[in-house]
Amino acid sequence: MTIKEKIKSFKEEFNIHFEREIRKALQEQRDFHPVITDLDEPLTNIVLDYTMGGKRIRPFLIYFFSEKNTDNESLQKICMASELFHLAALIHDDIIDNSPTRRGAKTIHTATQEFAKENTHLGKDIAILMGDVFLTEAITTAAQLPRPIFEKFREMIQRTIHGQYLDSFGMNQLLGETPESEVLARHELKTAWYTFASPATLGFMMHEHYSEEKELVLQNIMKQIGLLFQIRDDIIDCIDENSGKPLFGDIFEGQTTWVTLHIKEYYPQLLDRIIDAKDTNNTDELKNIFKEIDLVTAYKQEFKKCEQLISGIQNQYSDIKEKAYEVLELLTLS
Amino acid sequence: MTIKEKIKSFKEEFNIHFEREIRKALQEQRDFHPVITDLDEPLTNIVLDYTMGGKRIRPFLIYFFSEKNTDNESLQKICMASELFHLAALIHDDIIDNSPTRRGAKTIHTATQEFAKENTHLGKDIAILMGDVFLTEAITTAAQLPRPIFEKFREMIQRTIHGQYLDSFGMNQLLGETPESEVLARHELKTAWYTFASPATLGFMMHEHYSEEKELVLQNIMKQIGLLFQIRDDIIDCIDENSGKPLFGDIFEGQTTWVTLHIKEYYPQLLDRIIDAKDTNNTDELKNIFKEIDLVTAYKQEFKKCEQLISGIQNQYSDIKEKAYEVLELLTLS
Repeated sequence: MTIKEKIKSFKEEFNIHFEREIRKALQEQRDFHPVITDLDEPLTNIVLDYTMGGKRIRPFLIYFFSEKNTDNESLQKICMASELFHLAALIHDDIIDNSPTRRGAKTIHTATQEFAKENTHLGKDIAILMGDVFLTEAITTAAQLPRPIFEKFREMIQRTIHGQYLDSFGMNQLLGETPESEVLARHELKTAWYTFASPATLGFMMHEHYSEEKELVLQNIMKQIGLLFQIRDDIIDCIDENSGKPLFGDIFEGQTTWVTLHIKEYYPQLLDRIIDAKDTNNTDELKNIFKEIDLVTAYKQEFKKCEQLISGIQNQYSDIKEKAYEVLELLTLS
Repeated sequence: MTIKEKIKSFKEEFNIHFEREIRKALQEQRDFHPVITDLDEPLTNIVLDYTMGGKRIRPFLIYFFSEKNTDNESLQKICMASELFHLAALIHDDIIDNSPTRRGAKTIHTATQEFAKENTHLGKDIAILMGDVFLTEAITTAAQLPRPIFEKFREMIQRTIHGQYLDSFGMNQLLGETPESEVLARHELKTAWYTFASPATLGFMMHEHYSEEKELVLQNIMKQIGLLFQIRDDIIDCIDENSGKPLFGDIFEGQTTWVTLHIKEYYPQLLDRIIDAKDTNNTDELKNIFKEIDLVTAYKQEFKKCEQLISGIQNQYSDIKEKAYEVLELLTLS
């Protein structure tokens, strides 16, 4: 089975549990005091529409590195906790980014706003609270696990929030002005740790051959893969019209990314033209400018660097090495 | 010692621990990736200014009903968790209510907005994330306690969020239109459970003579005291210019309260005049209308009802009874 097939198969099974968990969490809320019952069903559907298209990459990586069966109870709990946290984080993230849609579905604050009469911020209010509900469920689910795993889960949350915080500070800045160290810190926290190193670690802590030494080897390589994923994401933002997100989203947000830093270094004469095009909201001009920049070749070089890092892993860690190669397969730029 | 003196003495000791905990939580965030160091100290001070004026009524009630010494480790943890959650809830609540100040200090979203350059929603973004940080710290602190206490803590959080959710739906409605059952549900969840019944229960679960039967007696009376507290709060909103909050805040928010329902029942002819005064933003007219309404006498009757409920508690629960009388002392309307 290719890794993509493994993800597909995992996801189908996981989604059944996840939908049940979300319904349970929302139902429990209401049971505390069932009052506005006519909104219960619509609100549940809003959350399900929003979340059921998710890729489930984090719980998959937990499962993949644990080498446990999907019916292992602890594995199920940590996968569930991780995806519940992801749901909470996305809900709050969408408010911060003021996003109307995600994966084609309406964001929670946009969808719930439709229930409002004169209250223009009801959608965001409800979304803040929904995020809090799922954050609480995530942590309390993880709290049922052995202490070291729970502690690692808590660290993951705090790191992710800190990454989001750097993201907020990085918005609406002059492109290329944010120091490289700050951009890298954001990418490490928001993507490399959160999407790759942390889930892999959480899973590996359940592995029968777990050791702290192996954990460090694993974290190190998964962080590099995570950074590559972020570079890929930053590039897609500038070249792929069919990614599901609007083209040049980062640029219009005034967010310095790997692409901006790359241009600053290798095509410095283009940066002012990009800033002008951004300020005049000129997408066509941006498309023209990006024709002069060979991001695909630059990506291939970064990909190769990551491949070399994996090949440099000593053979005593062959299980980690093989899995890292598999994960890397997800990151080709087609 | 009167109960007010007990609170004062508890608070002084608690605040030392609480300040240390907040500094630790924020420091830990930064240790994950120390980047924007020039903002660290100002952000810490913003949070401390915001929280250090708090009344600490919830941790006090936990302590009061536990009959443990303040140096008991489990007691310290649950008090800390409870106040950390309160901090998180207030931060998110202020965003929802769009409040510029609380207890004379700037709210977190207002204070952090001053760091923003062109990003007009940075303050709210940072405040959402700060709330998430403290919510996470609250739950992970409580997770170190015995399972039944942790489970009760989780229930408290979910109930409180649900109350806030009802609050959001109740805003900007026509005064007096929200059904009484919905107003009562909100008051039970947001105040009666959250500020009184839940903290008292959490403390009492550590008491050496704890039993489930006693817990129910305690919860029942503390819920009544909590509802009385809410009535007092609703009345203060309409008659006390020096409460620290703007006069007629609930009315201008379009929030149906105990006062609105009381007027609807006993002074129905005044309701339209109040709605007109609200719509024309006429505070002087509202002051004139409220001179015709005797809220103080109405409150005294509610107070007496609560006193009678306490006196009806059977003598086998004398410890609960005596403590309930003490808590009631806090609720005179002077």
